[in-house]
Amino acid sequence: MKQYYRHPGPFRLESGAELPELEIAYHTYGALNADRSNVVWVCHALTASSDVADWWPHTVETGCFLDPEKWFVVCANIIGSPYGTTSPLSVNPLTGEPYYADFPRYTIRDMAKAHATLADALGIDRIHMLVGSSVGGFQATEWAVEQPWRFEKLVLIATDAKASPWTIAIDETQRMAIMADSTYGQRRPDAAMAGLAAARAIGLLTYRGPEGYNLTQQDLADSLTDTHRACTYQQYQGDKLCRRYNAYSYVAILDAFDTHNVGRGRGGIEAALAGITARTIVVGLTTDIIFTPAEMRALCALITGARYHEISSPFGHDGFLVEHAQLNSILTPFINE
Amino acid sequence: MKQYYRHPGPFRLESGAELPELEIAYHTYGALNADRSNVVWVCHALTASSDVADWWPHTVETGCFLDPEKWFVVCANIIGSPYGTTSPLSVNPLTGEPYYADFPRYTIRDMAKAHATLADALGIDRIHMLVGSSVGGFQATEWAVEQPWRFEKLVLIATDAKASPWTIAIDETQRMAIMADSTYGQRRPDAAMAGLAAARAIGLLTYRGPEGYNLTQQDLADSLTDTHRACTYQQYQGDKLCRRYNAYSYVAILDAFDTHNVGRGRGGIEAALAGITARTIVVGLTTDIIFTPAEMRALCALITGARYHEISSPFGHDGFLVEHAQLNSILTPFINE
Repeated sequence: MKQYYRHPGPFRLESGAELPELEIAYHTYGALNADRSNVVWVCHALTASSDVADWWPHTVETGCFLDPEKWFVVCANIIGSPYGTTSPLSVNPLTGEPYYADFPRYTIRDMAKAHATLADALGIDRIHMLVGSSVGGFQATEWAVEQPWRFEKLVLIATDAKASPWTIAIDETQRMAIMADSTYGQRRPDAAMAGLAAARAIGLLTYRGPEGYNLTQQDLADSLTDTHRACTYQQYQGDKLCRRYNAYSYVAILDAFDTHNVGRGRGGIEAALAGITARTIVVGLTTDIIFTPAEMRALCALITGARYHEISSPFGHDGFLVEHAQLNSILTPFINE
Repeated sequence: MKQYYRHPGPFRLESGAELPELEIAYHTYGALNADRSNVVWVCHALTASSDVADWWPHTVETGCFLDPEKWFVVCANIIGSPYGTTSPLSVNPLTGEPYYADFPRYTIRDMAKAHATLADALGIDRIHMLVGSSVGGFQATEWAVEQPWRFEKLVLIATDAKASPWTIAIDETQRMAIMADSTYGQRRPDAAMAGLAAARAIGLLTYRGPEGYNLTQQDLADSLTDTHRACTYQQYQGDKLCRRYNAYSYVAILDAFDTHNVGRGRGGIEAALAGITARTIVVGLTTDIIFTPAEMRALCALITGARYHEISSPFGHDGFLVEHAQLNSILTPFINE
């Protein structure tokens, strides 16, 4: 069920700037129990929404790890995303016009603060399990470091404690593709659609990786005149995002991605992660080229008592969306422990 | 020494179309010996030129594998490249104007045919060793399959017998970035420079990979206001290519890349590679995400008697340009064998 929360007054950002208004769109699944002990909070990734059941197949289902018959699952749309939370397409009350490229810069820490603000507003003090994958994991790590007392369990999937140079380079390249479209900057929601499509295609390369493409996009014939399936696929994925997203939200979230560093102002990453008290599981994917298994193991080693699981998948980073059977077999026992 | 060869009459392309004129720019290093038995032919990659000594450090040097005191090293600039061979910036004699986006589509096979044409014109019958890395390896594989009698030895570095769906997806994404720049199509050599910069940045991601970026582009400080080194690096690499290249040549060569399939019209890849008679070394790189070690081993297994060597490098595909010590230690004994 999609709901909205309007934050009273301006929302102060880490940069010192503020959002004059903050509205947060969120979904809940299942029912909060009497002692409010069954809350599971999911943090979503880049272009997803608060509708977990929509973008994460076979998780919010009876018998799966986010079983709505047992758990009260909450997911809030992140700042900047066009799925209902205040974003570059929202009207800036100070100007009466949408923000577009003038949306203030914000950080992953601001996203986590928005989640905490919503949890407080919902009267949710303790959270049984916090789950984040990819950029969702950035938020989850931040939040678990900032308010360790709130969480019983923590699940970090295909993510990191800091945006690496590699991931920042991927983001910068996507921004370059968007800016190469000279309609970026025009004050309309469909600005830079060709650039956004190219950016999405770049993202797809990194989400799927060599094995993913070679497994699914082989050409059936080879002639000099046929279009390659891999080309059609990239175009299709680019167009598909353009139908549901906008370039300003995309750039805003990429910019926030690059700010991720749980160690900032906390004496470094090790010191920050040492503050996590939740029982933690870290999940990597064998063919993930964004957050490699080696990096996931290194992250796990810095969280006290954390256990590492690796999902075997040819689908790279996207494996976390595809390999629901493996995911459920790791997380269902853990959430019920 | 840079030289030019003008092909007499039109050059027939695999597609059936023809180039009304073909000029080939090429470099030679060292001297051809009396019995013409000391020829080493190098095929260059995507945006390189015929000047091997310029783009491949510590190879065309005394004591290195392309020792110009021993070998007569030849490298021809590929069709479509702006370094002297007929390209989209050349004047089409039929119109009196540069081709730009109207340059005819051509293939890797056409590139190999141009090399063979030049070799014939230079009076070079047998070639002691043919070397190709990346797209250079595409040409080398094609040529070794088409004219097996010509080659004593063959070296294939970080390449493949067919463009994979993964590599085609990378190319398509680069084309999407270029086409997102609405100046693509304008009849001027500096059209789509912003798109070309983004395309190059995409390329760089795949050339370097996670380890390469994380090793060299770590930020020294973390503040919310500093620009990340990884961003500066992507911008710098994009700009650098724009100063020496053009979008039309880039797209033409990407298109040719995607046609690569030594098995086309030859009963498949296995049958085609079975025709290679040269003693062959295949070289992979541990962190190459374009042509993965697993794919390099598979390529090696299809070439009779071929030996596989793996260069250990954190620099991904670009390792073939960086790890000259390992490369020389593999190839110097082989060329002298």
